[in-house]
Parts: sequence; C-alpha cells; structure tokens
Amino acid sequence: MTISLRKARTIIRKALEKGRELELKPLSVIVLDAGGHVQAFEREDGASVGRFGIAHGKAYGSVMMGMAGTAQMKRAEDQAYFLAAVNGVFGGNVVPVPGGVLLRDKKGAVIGAVGVTGDSSDNDAIAAMAGIEAANLVGEI
Amino acid sequence: MTISLRKARTIIRKALEKGRELELKPLSVIVLDAGGHVQAFEREDGASVGRFGIAHGKAYGSVMMGMAGTAQMKRAEDQAYFLAAVNGVFGGNVVPVPGGVLLRDKKGAVIGAVGVTGDSSDNDAIAAMAGIEAANLVGEI
Amino acid sequence: MTISLRKARTIIRKALEKGRELELKPLSVIVLDAGGHVQAFEREDGASVGRFGIAHGKAYGSVMMGMAGTAQMKRAEDQAYFLAAVNGVFGGNVVPVPGGVLLRDKKGAVIGAVGVTGDSSDNDAIAAMAGIEAANLVGEI
Amino acid sequence: MTISLRKARTIIRKALEKGRELELKPLSVIVLDAGGHVQAFEREDGASVGRFGIAHGKAYGSVMMGMAGTAQMKRAEDQAYFLAAVNGVFGGNVVPVPGGVLLRDKKGAVIGAVGVTGDSSDNDAIAAMAGIEAANLVGEI
Repeated sequence: MTISLRKARTIIRKALEKGRELELKPLSVIVLDAGGHVQAFEREDGASVGRFGIAHGKAYGSVMMGMAGTAQMKRAEDQAYFLAAVNGVFGGNVVPVPGGVLLRDKKGAVIGAVGVTGDSSDNDAIAAMAGIEAANLVGEI
Repeated sequence: MTISLRKARTIIRKALEKGRELELKPLSVIVLDAGGHVQAFEREDGASVGRFGIAHGKAYGSVMMGMAGTAQMKRAEDQAYFLAAVNGVFGGNVVPVPGGVLLRDKKGAVIGAVGVTGDSSDNDAIAAMAGIEAANLVGEI
Repeated sequence: MTISLRKARTIIRKALEKGRELELKPLSVIVLDAGGHVQAFEREDGASVGRFGIAHGKAYGSVMMGMAGTAQMKRAEDQAYFLAAVNGVFGGNVVPVPGGVLLRDKKGAVIGAVGVTGDSSDNDAIAAMAGIEAANLVGEI
Repeated sequence: MTISLRKARTIIRKALEKGRELELKPLSVIVLDAGGHVQAFEREDGASVGRFGIAHGKAYGSVMMGMAGTAQMKRAEDQAYFLAAVNGVFGGNVVPVPGGVLLRDKKGAVIGAVGVTGDSSDNDAIAAMAGIEAANLVGEI
C-alpha cells in the first residue's frame, strides 16, 4: 500500500485549511511515500523560502527511521550526538521535531509520512493530523 | 512579482490534465519561485520514485541560469564541460533538457520556473506550457 | 507489493550459483526495494572491495528512474550530459549499464531492482536474471 | 585475514535468529571487511527503510577508528565535538553507539566489523555477538 496522489492532495488541502482555521502562520506541507520520496508539496503564500527543506526533513526522518517527530525529538534531547550522526548518514535531511508525522497501514507498516512547518512544532503537528484524518489515514505524531 | 500558490496549483493541474489528454506516461510537475525555491509539486501515481529530483533539476537550472531547458540542452551539446562545471557550482541540481520552462513577467524578469518529467523531454515541455498558459503566464521553453 | 527478505535471498543465492556455473569472475549482488533502499547484499570472496557501490549504482538508477540498465546505457550513449546531470541529482549513485535489472509486479509497478557486478555487464545481467527467475519474479534488463 | 562470505552469512543469520529468539524488533545486520567495505547485509521484513545506513554507520566507525560502538559512545558523551569532527572526516558515516562490534584476529588486528540496528542499542549488540560467536570469531562490543 502506498499514498495515492489523490490522498496526498487531501492531506495537504485539509492541513492548510486547519492552519487558516486556527489562524496559524503560513504553512508548508509535504507528503512522502513509503520509500521517503516526495509525492506532493505545497507552500502557502507568505511562508519563508526554505520551507520545503524543513517540511521534507521532518517527514524524511520519520520514514527513514520509522520514528515520528516527537520520538525523534526525545532521542535528540537524550542523545544529541546520535541524531547528529543519523543526519550524517541521511545527508543532513533529518529535522527531529514534531510536525513530522508517520503514516502506517492497519498492520503497522510504514506507508509514508507528512511534514508540516511554519508555526510552532506542536501546531504544525495539529495541522498535519487534521489533513491525515480527512484522508482516512492514521497518523503517529 | 512571484508565483502565488493558487497559480502554481493551476499550472500543475493543467499540466497533468494535458498529460492525460495526450496519453503521456505518468508525469511529475514542480513550480519554483523567483529564487529557485519549491512552491508546489505533484507526482502522478505510477511515476518512478525519483521524479522529484528530475523535475526539480529541470526547473532549478532554468531559474539559476535564467535559461530554459532547450537553451541549456543546446549549450550542453556544444560545451558539455560547461554544463558539468555549472553542475559543480549548483550542487548537481541542474538537468539541462526540455521540460524546464522559464517564467518571466511582462518586463522580462524571471519570476520562477516549471519542471515537468515523465515522458519524452519534448512532451514534458508541451504539458508544462499547457499549465503555464492556463495560469495566464508566459513560458520560455 | 515489495520484495521480502526471503525472495531477496533467493535472488542473491541463485545469481551467485549462476556465476559459478558459467565460471564468471566473483560476483556481487544487491537487491533494492521499491523505494531504492537496500534489502540485501552479498559480495563473493575474491571480488574487489568497491563492488557494493557498483552493484548499488546499477540497481539504484533503475529504481529511481524506472528504467533498467540497458535503457540507461542507450540514453547515456545518446546524451552523455543527461546521465551526468541525473547523477548529480542522485548524488553520483547511478551506474547506467546492464546488470541493473528492474523488477515489476504484474500490473507493471516497480517493486525493486537487482544489481550484479563482477564480470562483463552482459554476464552480470544473465546472472541477475537467473536469480530473479528462481524467485518467480519478472526482470527487465 | 579477512571475513569470508561464508562467515559473514553465518554472522547475519545467527544474529537475526537471536533477534527472533529474544522477540526484538525487526533487525538489520551488516558485515564489513578489514577495509570497511560491505561484505554482506540483510534487512528483515518490517524494518524501516533507512536501516542500511544506520547499520553501516555503526560498523564503519568501528573499523575506521579501530574502536567499537560502546567506546565510541563514551567518547561522544565526553567530547561530542570530537565525534562530530570525525564524522566530518568520514563523510558523516559514523554512528557512535552500541551495535557496532569490532572483529579482531588472535593477534588483535582488525579484520572487520558487524553493525546491527532495529531494537535498543544494547539489544542490537547482543544480537551481533550471537552471530559473531556462531562464526567462531571474537567480537569487541
């Protein structure tokens, strides 16, 4: 199982709508497939230009390690050098904070990840979850 | 002037529709802003997983050099070492073939680029132009 | 659908057996999943130390572009600068010659790739196909 | 002296069996030779896709510095900047935690390393040692 483009679009639109509803800062949302490859991405007007990289890093680390943003942040707080090393292995593409949400199928297999950035990490995760639920998927924050 | 997310969405949707109309292989479409930063991207179901990188490389080289895909290809054919050197400067992120389309405003200033990949380079460019025209912008192939 | 470790082992063992049967030089065989990630790899005694990279490069390019080694080689011969650019995008990890074999499911979706290196490119591909057939999969040379 | 493919296979199989016996999460196991080059690797079904990089990083640092994972971790905790610098030298390929096990011959010369990842670092090291002992080799955790 993988994320279809149709599902990815739903996730992005609904995450952005949630951001408007909560009056968050301009958001950027990425959806990666089960291999960590970009399926779709949108950056709202007014977001800073580097947001693709941040959104990507949140979602990419989630897929590559099978560990969502909150768990990555805990590991980074406990063992900063471990996350630094992991970032060496993955080309500096891991951003270990909330807003990286792991997607699993019903058997628990990773089928992709969503990355949201723009507001606080916790608000980013709330927007991501709104998109994921609208697409009838289960997210792991 | 820059590309709004609304315009980027139109470009992507209409480019993908053109691909379906012409029965092209699954396409991937990226829109970059005037600074070469990702605004929006979509990869159709069935496209190979590395298509973000190829679409990005077509559009990125266009913005960074202010030269669209066809002109880059000619330069690559005339002076392969020049494009190789450019790729050293830009971190290997330039893919010098058609399907990278430059966007200019009415005064000729670069406001972004579109990158399409999935079918032949020429068909990729046709799909890109369909999206650009639907967004009332002018593309340089 | 993806390649199980059990299938990957079968592919590797049978490819190596084919190499011994044909008295090829020591071979190295890699199996990548649908996202281009390493599932399994073995290097025969006597193979040179850099064979992981070559095997990986043959299979990785196949997955990322959805194009097997023979087609990549043709494209490299027609447009050397294009393959050079693609290698920039994919971090220099593409080796565009036979021995990179694409795996598809019955609907044509890419489910992984096999990379074999050690003898001539054509013999490498023969060994790869022997492994793939033993695993009841279909390879695209 | 170096690690034969036969020995590498034994290490991997027995490490994976140990993981199943202890009901660990899905494991990935790599064996590197005395030069730090990949000899063999297997990733169990259900392991996250980035596990090759982590397993490799644990074993690679062990060979390159002649120092196993536990000693590397202590050094990282005492002098985080030193490990960061080492990772600069070795291209970000060092993951300084247990699960990277150094292999020495009877005279103490490094003949390779094993890297295991998937469960806690300590459990990863236990699985690695089970494989190493089954191959009649001596491991340094």
